[in-house]
Amino acid sequence: MVHNGIEYGDMQLIGEIYDLMHRLLKLDNESMQSIFSDWNEGDLDSYLIEITKDILGYKEEDGTFLLDKILDTAGQKGTGKWTGISALHESVPLTLIVESVFARSVSSQKDERLAASKVYGLAPNHPVSDPKAFVTMLGKALYAAKIISYAQGFSLIKTAGETNNWDLNLGGIALLWRGGCIIRSAFLDKISQAFTKNPMLQNLIMDPYFVQILKENHQSLREVVSAAALNGIPIPSLSAALSWFDSYRTERLPANLLQAQRDYFGAHTYERVDKKRGKFFHTNWTGRGGDTASTTYSV
Amino acid sequence: MVHNGIEYGDMQLIGEIYDLMHRLLKLDNESMQSIFSDWNEGDLDSYLIEITKDILGYKEEDGTFLLDKILDTAGQKGTGKWTGISALHESVPLTLIVESVFARSVSSQKDERLAASKVYGLAPNHPVSDPKAFVTMLGKALYAAKIISYAQGFSLIKTAGETNNWDLNLGGIALLWRGGCIIRSAFLDKISQAFTKNPMLQNLIMDPYFVQILKENHQSLREVVSAAALNGIPIPSLSAALSWFDSYRTERLPANLLQAQRDYFGAHTYERVDKKRGKFFHTNWTGRGGDTASTTYSV
Repeated sequence: MVHNGIEYGDMQLIGEIYDLMHRLLKLDNESMQSIFSDWNEGDLDSYLIEITKDILGYKEEDGTFLLDKILDTAGQKGTGKWTGISALHESVPLTLIVESVFARSVSSQKDERLAASKVYGLAPNHPVSDPKAFVTMLGKALYAAKIISYAQGFSLIKTAGETNNWDLNLGGIALLWRGGCIIRSAFLDKISQAFTKNPMLQNLIMDPYFVQILKENHQSLREVVSAAALNGIPIPSLSAALSWFDSYRTERLPANLLQAQRDYFGAHTYERVDKKRGKFFHTNWTGRGGDTASTTYSV
Repeated sequence: MVHNGIEYGDMQLIGEIYDLMHRLLKLDNESMQSIFSDWNEGDLDSYLIEITKDILGYKEEDGTFLLDKILDTAGQKGTGKWTGISALHESVPLTLIVESVFARSVSSQKDERLAASKVYGLAPNHPVSDPKAFVTMLGKALYAAKIISYAQGFSLIKTAGETNNWDLNLGGIALLWRGGCIIRSAFLDKISQAFTKNPMLQNLIMDPYFVQILKENHQSLREVVSAAALNGIPIPSLSAALSWFDSYRTERLPANLLQAQRDYFGAHTYERVDKKRGKFFHTNWTGRGGDTASTTYSV
């Protein structure tokens, strides 16, 4: 199941990168084919990059590109949804894959999108100053987001293993996905090495090899997310990757406010940074007496 | 259930805006309190904005702000997850609320975040050139994202109603949420009016009133997402809102590539833009014979 969820994520990421090349940089299919071909010789070497390269170059008998004539409504068979549901049950933030599942749903709402595109008109336009440098950033952003997606996927497997008392060999699972699988790639060897070297590894992005790559590449992911936001190109999975990464690397998140809100309206209590963990406090925020200020259920 | 899911989204959005004020603009609690107080007089007028204002101003007996001492690990009781699972089952893109549910999960991984913050160091720093104008943009971005979240939530109710043959009055449901509910706001009246005026309304963001507001505010959402990405402030729900909006308003998404990939490795077939909808085509992409190029399950 998680293999297939990761596959949804990989395909969505490649689609977002293709969309940025196509609509923002206005590259033609042959230029894109040549970029994917180059990428397939480096860190991104994988089956899905390879077939994307083939697809970009495929011409019909009349010499026109087939890709341009394919309808943009994606189907799905359900394993992506299943992975997302499992992640929600396990409380594992599997943000990138869930966004990729929802992206297929939006794509299938073709008539609604057509109507909305007429009402809202063209997207804003903030051309990229150096398209060649931007292509390099796209490759780095794709690699960073891919690492994050696999980190989330392996985190789900790890957590489900703990929940169910399964004795899982995460490094072995990574190796398993090389043979004949759609997400097969050189990259899986690195994942396997990370978990073999340290079977207690809390999260893939804490392995020194991946720390180094993310340090080199996260700036590109930022630039790409920023450019896409300003240009109206949807990048649900790339931006989910960045937000998760920035949450995970943040010592202090704004959840203090959220806990205060929950305590305010539902007396859910909170912990304090200046007191021992596991001690819970409640405040009568309004000073008007009574413990809660609302009548709805607690969340 | 959807009321509570929307509540998760609203609280996460306010948290992200607070984080941007606090960590990016370096505003103190009293300045933030005054901004939330202003916002509560306008379009954002709501119970959650009001209590946020109270919380920002609450001081302990020693004169220090309580909010700063609350631990940033959010709890949850399950209705957010339930809403997300329902959306996955119904294939309704409920991206913002699901991100808000996952954000609570990341917040609760405090020890992991602490470790990651040490390894990855400080976030990048790209100061905002005009903080005052940025505060105005934050208010507009929050309003735009809130509309998008409610649009997604009502879309889930509408779809579930169709699935289950429930005769739902969406305008009436909006009104129901005013009385005593945590998401109560002036804004719910506008939603009610939209669905009462047009019970067949496909999506809230297609109602003329909300079209106008989104046209006025989406640029601010873009600027905020871009600034947050460059500054390493996690904004999972704000960016999910923008990506969904940009997907929904896009006539042609990159799902053509995704369908080509699915046809390449799994012979899942595709439709064509130059042929009638409902006719399915398959291509032997490699020209090497055989229908599929992979041995894994189809997705």
